[in-house]
Amino acid sequence: MATMQNGTKGEAEKDCRKAYGLAAKDASGFLAPFTFSRRNNGDDDVTIKILYCGICHSDLHTIKNEWKNAIYPVVPGHEIVGLVTETGRNVQKFKLGDRAGVGCLVNSCRSCDSCDRNLENYCPKLIFTYNSVDTDGTITYGGYSDSIVVNEHFVVKFPENLPMDKGAPLLCAGITVYSPMKNFGLDEPGKHLGVVGLGGLGHVAVKFGKAFGMKVTVISTSLKKKDEAISKLGADAFLVSSDSAQMQAAMGSMDGIINTVSAKHDVVPLIFLLKTHGKMIMVGGPEHPLELPIFPLLMGGKIIAGSCIGGLKQTQEMIDFAAKNGITAEIELIKADYVNEAMERLAKADVRYRFVIDVGNSLKSA
Amino acid sequence: MATMQNGTKGEAEKDCRKAYGLAAKDASGFLAPFTFSRRNNGDDDVTIKILYCGICHSDLHTIKNEWKNAIYPVVPGHEIVGLVTETGRNVQKFKLGDRAGVGCLVNSCRSCDSCDRNLENYCPKLIFTYNSVDTDGTITYGGYSDSIVVNEHFVVKFPENLPMDKGAPLLCAGITVYSPMKNFGLDEPGKHLGVVGLGGLGHVAVKFGKAFGMKVTVISTSLKKKDEAISKLGADAFLVSSDSAQMQAAMGSMDGIINTVSAKHDVVPLIFLLKTHGKMIMVGGPEHPLELPIFPLLMGGKIIAGSCIGGLKQTQEMIDFAAKNGITAEIELIKADYVNEAMERLAKADVRYRFVIDVGNSLKSA
Repeated sequence: MATMQNGTKGEAEKDCRKAYGLAAKDASGFLAPFTFSRRNNGDDDVTIKILYCGICHSDLHTIKNEWKNAIYPVVPGHEIVGLVTETGRNVQKFKLGDRAGVGCLVNSCRSCDSCDRNLENYCPKLIFTYNSVDTDGTITYGGYSDSIVVNEHFVVKFPENLPMDKGAPLLCAGITVYSPMKNFGLDEPGKHLGVVGLGGLGHVAVKFGKAFGMKVTVISTSLKKKDEAISKLGADAFLVSSDSAQMQAAMGSMDGIINTVSAKHDVVPLIFLLKTHGKMIMVGGPEHPLELPIFPLLMGGKIIAGSCIGGLKQTQEMIDFAAKNGITAEIELIKADYVNEAMERLAKADVRYRFVIDVGNSLKSA
Repeated sequence: MATMQNGTKGEAEKDCRKAYGLAAKDASGFLAPFTFSRRNNGDDDVTIKILYCGICHSDLHTIKNEWKNAIYPVVPGHEIVGLVTETGRNVQKFKLGDRAGVGCLVNSCRSCDSCDRNLENYCPKLIFTYNSVDTDGTITYGGYSDSIVVNEHFVVKFPENLPMDKGAPLLCAGITVYSPMKNFGLDEPGKHLGVVGLGGLGHVAVKFGKAFGMKVTVISTSLKKKDEAISKLGADAFLVSSDSAQMQAAMGSMDGIINTVSAKHDVVPLIFLLKTHGKMIMVGGPEHPLELPIFPLLMGGKIIAGSCIGGLKQTQEMIDFAAKNGITAEIELIKADYVNEAMERLAKADVRYRFVIDVGNSLKSA
């Protein structure tokens, strides 16, 4: 593999330090070793030696520029777990050697209405962990790398009893489903939750739903994952969305649905699954608009909402809840040099349910 | 005009009484005098001599069979106000001579989850005031008629200080906008409400919003109604939806939107008007599906919900609130023999903002 060099020139060496990782340099999405700079550890920063990083579907969308916003080279990765190796003098939450996690955000304005409400994820000036322009004008690089420097506000304390590899995906997939479940009251024992799509997000939603004491039904396009959904993930029931008899029998039975599907799909049969005042929360990001007939919404006073990851306070709450309840992602741990094959398999949904890169043991500098 | 006779045959005269009204007999929607039967007053019923009945856009949709569900002959009308002329022995809320109002519902199962939560409007067995099959198998006839017999649970006490003609439309238009405003927290002083479409529903939403102490902005397709919206209805601001500069300047400013538009329209610019976690409630019923891109919902954690009229408890609360705050509809009072012209004008949106039939003074028996 060729080694790419960071294009940023003329940085005084004292203001930054070397880092290395894997980057895509164009829309082929091919990930190759890449040496680049990270800022020195500031007063409010912690530096993390990265041990594990999950592979989120967003990483694939971005490296292939499917969202038309890629700023190459892209170092993806926003499900980052590692150990603190340096702390700024103002840092209070962390000390050297602490476990630390970084999710989708590394900065926000800290002063807008959303930030004031611990909803940094909705700050108009939020800075994503990779492929964003940081406050100093540099481009952010993510967790497919050896280390990262982040303001401590955007770093979560990673619980001691939560496996670092299996816990990493919770920092994106976990909070993405946990947040709307909490915000829309889909966290109450006895309520009935539907989970549409059983991938990286969906399988974690099933686990949170069960931990909340809910009845959980998985809705999927095929029977393939039924046994696993029920016996391994603990779902109570499984519906095949193309089986109209099954779908009809379940009409009006669900308090809420977490819809993780990114592909274009018919939402009407899903709306019919909801009880009066039921809520379907979209957490996948379909590229094309959905067709939304209004009558089915009107007739049951139903809600369709979008939800995008979560704020830092809730992310900490989520990871602590996961640790307490033994919730982790189901993962396939891979070495860094397998990442391009992993991406190919991810594009075919050939993973149960999340790839995690063993960064600490396998990422080699260029 | 020809007189139609009720098709129901063989009814024992002792079980019913004669009534008369205006009915459409086919999809022309032409309303002609019609004599029919109503049930005798049962133990839980009140009989109401109808004095006023508002003309809702649903009436027009139904008589022209635009929703493909008309059961002819159709006697429309579900904004009914009158005086009680008979009470069953179990009736507790009403005595002879009381003012009474009937909205969109005349019955429901009274035992389902929705009914238990005072959401009769979402009961799967709800019976609409007209064009529904009643529990005895007869078809319900609405308020374009001299009298109606209704279980007292579905009759609201119409306040003494609320004008009966101008208050009639509140029984459908009023509760349709009041209910979601209450249910979604769009009733708090200082919050910013958008009202899309300034017709029968929208103009009442503006009045409720102002009575709640909110900032209210009307969003309309043209400037035509601006002066009236602000000077007469009390709106604080007015946006022309096609003026992208105006719309852009208002981005992210609204806590919620009541969207009353039934025609196909682009909801994306409206979603952008909402703050983070803002809510757009659809109360119009577009015939065709809307295009719903998911990203704008995700990016602000935003909500699109449907809402359909309201339950009886909330309808009573609404009409009492209206009376207390001097809220009435803006109406054009018409005689019964003007109803077909009124329908033609309604189809062209040529009314500010609601026709009300002066039933008591102008409806003649056939």
